[in-house]
Amino acid sequence: MSKSPLPPLLYADTGTSSDQLYFSQVGVHDPFISFGVGKKRYTVQSALELGRVEKAGTFDQVLPLEAWAKRARKTYPDRRVGPAEIIAELAKSHRVRGFRVSDDFPVSLYLKLLKLGLTIELANGALFPEREIKTAKEAAAIREGNRLSSVGFTVAEDMLRRSRLRKRELILDGKPLTSERVQFAIATAIMEQGGKPDHTIVAGGDQACDPHERGFGPLRPNELIIIDIFPQVIKTGYFGDMTRTYLRGRASEAQRQLYQTVHNAQKTAIKSVKTGVDGREVHQKVLDVFATAGYETKHSKAGSIGFFHGTGHGLGLAVHEAPRLSAAVSYQLKQGSVVTVEPGLYYPGFGGCRIEDVVQVGARGPKLLSSHHYDWEIR
Amino acid sequence: MSKSPLPPLLYADTGTSSDQLYFSQVGVHDPFISFGVGKKRYTVQSALELGRVEKAGTFDQVLPLEAWAKRARKTYPDRRVGPAEIIAELAKSHRVRGFRVSDDFPVSLYLKLLKLGLTIELANGALFPEREIKTAKEAAAIREGNRLSSVGFTVAEDMLRRSRLRKRELILDGKPLTSERVQFAIATAIMEQGGKPDHTIVAGGDQACDPHERGFGPLRPNELIIIDIFPQVIKTGYFGDMTRTYLRGRASEAQRQLYQTVHNAQKTAIKSVKTGVDGREVHQKVLDVFATAGYETKHSKAGSIGFFHGTGHGLGLAVHEAPRLSAAVSYQLKQGSVVTVEPGLYYPGFGGCRIEDVVQVGARGPKLLSSHHYDWEIR
Repeated sequence: MSKSPLPPLLYADTGTSSDQLYFSQVGVHDPFISFGVGKKRYTVQSALELGRVEKAGTFDQVLPLEAWAKRARKTYPDRRVGPAEIIAELAKSHRVRGFRVSDDFPVSLYLKLLKLGLTIELANGALFPEREIKTAKEAAAIREGNRLSSVGFTVAEDMLRRSRLRKRELILDGKPLTSERVQFAIATAIMEQGGKPDHTIVAGGDQACDPHERGFGPLRPNELIIIDIFPQVIKTGYFGDMTRTYLRGRASEAQRQLYQTVHNAQKTAIKSVKTGVDGREVHQKVLDVFATAGYETKHSKAGSIGFFHGTGHGLGLAVHEAPRLSAAVSYQLKQGSVVTVEPGLYYPGFGGCRIEDVVQVGARGPKLLSSHHYDWEIR
Repeated sequence: MSKSPLPPLLYADTGTSSDQLYFSQVGVHDPFISFGVGKKRYTVQSALELGRVEKAGTFDQVLPLEAWAKRARKTYPDRRVGPAEIIAELAKSHRVRGFRVSDDFPVSLYLKLLKLGLTIELANGALFPEREIKTAKEAAAIREGNRLSSVGFTVAEDMLRRSRLRKRELILDGKPLTSERVQFAIATAIMEQGGKPDHTIVAGGDQACDPHERGFGPLRPNELIIIDIFPQVIKTGYFGDMTRTYLRGRASEAQRQLYQTVHNAQKTAIKSVKTGVDGREVHQKVLDVFATAGYETKHSKAGSIGFFHGTGHGLGLAVHEAPRLSAAVSYQLKQGSVVTVEPGLYYPGFGGCRIEDVVQVGARGPKLLSSHHYDWEIR
């Protein structure tokens, strides 16, 4: 197929659509129309948003919704005018026969646009493939996100260090130290520095064996505690994403071996990240290290144990984006892509460990965009 | 048309889709499949989420993604298996010919399901119309959200009261009092009590005349300051949404008149909320009060002034949902619906004022789900 000549069209808010945020570069929290014709970017905004979006200066033209709805009502006097009719009106006035839309474009709007005679082409992949390649400015924004993750780790380490060990509990300032207290302290520290820290994971013991369990209740001495922090930098919209595993007290030999194995797997995987390599190969490196060290992965009706998630994912204006480092899909790594590398091992009854950093794919190797120490045993 | 016999199908994450959150009642932050057959609810989850979702106990059955992907690969050996093929496999095994989906269902997945021979029907409105009617439990959850908004107002009032007036600045603890400082204090107080307070508005002077401007920089004495707080209760997913307008210093007669007019409009609008009334009529009450008091609304190329947004919107698992109290659309209010009532007036060069509360529609009148005083002038 020849390259599409159709201009991009978006209908989404910037909180849920990272494509819309990429295209608009200004936060608007109700769905809105934006589109590009040639090198120009247009958006349609209600009186509620128009002034603010104009001031942001990221669009060549901000069109008033009310006026365009009026035009559309003249053209379609027999229809209840909504986004579809307004988009058709815009297409006519900008002399385009149709648009290219993302794969997750709302089906109802798609069908209405077809009925109105527009040609709508699906991206069939990324709407903005260039999003995968991060500029120096974008890499710096991601690095700032990771700096905020690191701020969070420092807060958590301090709380763990200051806590006292009492039988099966950690006590800080006279009260049991809980996942929630650590999450709250991490969140406020990150917010204070301009980040939005949603869903931070602070999960100890068996809780950590459900990799997306946020964690709740008392943290225990001598257990592995996974802390995964992925804050969004409010100013730019880019995310950081890092994980460290800690233990307050004294680690057993088995815990040390698990930690070292995960860390070795991560280092081996990071080394293998370079332009042209398939994400699957990076994932395979992790599998090899775990197999050699004798750590099994098993799936059963009771759940999965061992290593049962991907090794990493693209990071940018979304926490999870292209490419992937996983057995499930093939992705040839491109120069400038940014990926997490986050192997983990999870054994209910024993605990879990995950270590995550972020690298940018270079011609000859990876460039770290995250930095925080790996001192995990807090005696 | 006869009522649809097709069961609902969702493919979304619970952070961006309130339908998915409503159906699943457990947070999962990557898109996943869920569907209902008869009175049973099913979901498909990867090993990464399965244990946690099973523990939540909100689905009758949690199906393992890996196993169903394997089945789909057997059925479709020549295709790259994704959500579409897995859904087709699930439809076959549950003996359904197709599904009903939301209007914002991803178009690409919709087209793939059609190609696989499934019947896919659009909701053409709400996928779960029953979401609009709030149970007593849901109303209590929204009330809790509003309690968190009120916690935020108390924090802000305290900061304004403690600030010293110095020429064109408010000084608190030796530093200028800014929108950001107040936003941060509100956010931490709400988080501490189990809320997720995104995008809180603290906007003074002309900033407040862009109703969705969050506000930034120093707050000034004797200017109107709009504070709009809409936190999500983490435990339930339901939102609160309240607005108060403040002034630190001494209000002018014109400011007092503006405030009283907005407050009168709000009280009049709230009184008119009852079962069977059209949302447009409630909105019209506000327009009438403003017109009688001589407050003009104008739209120009430079922007809009006066009252140029809807009077209110439904509130629940989304900040904006059905119904609406607005001139643009007709919505007959149903018993049990929950709506905000939030008239405002905005005049650049003078300032803006908005007052927002939340009511549940009753047979004979409104039931307030929000509660906070209206003492706005902090001398």
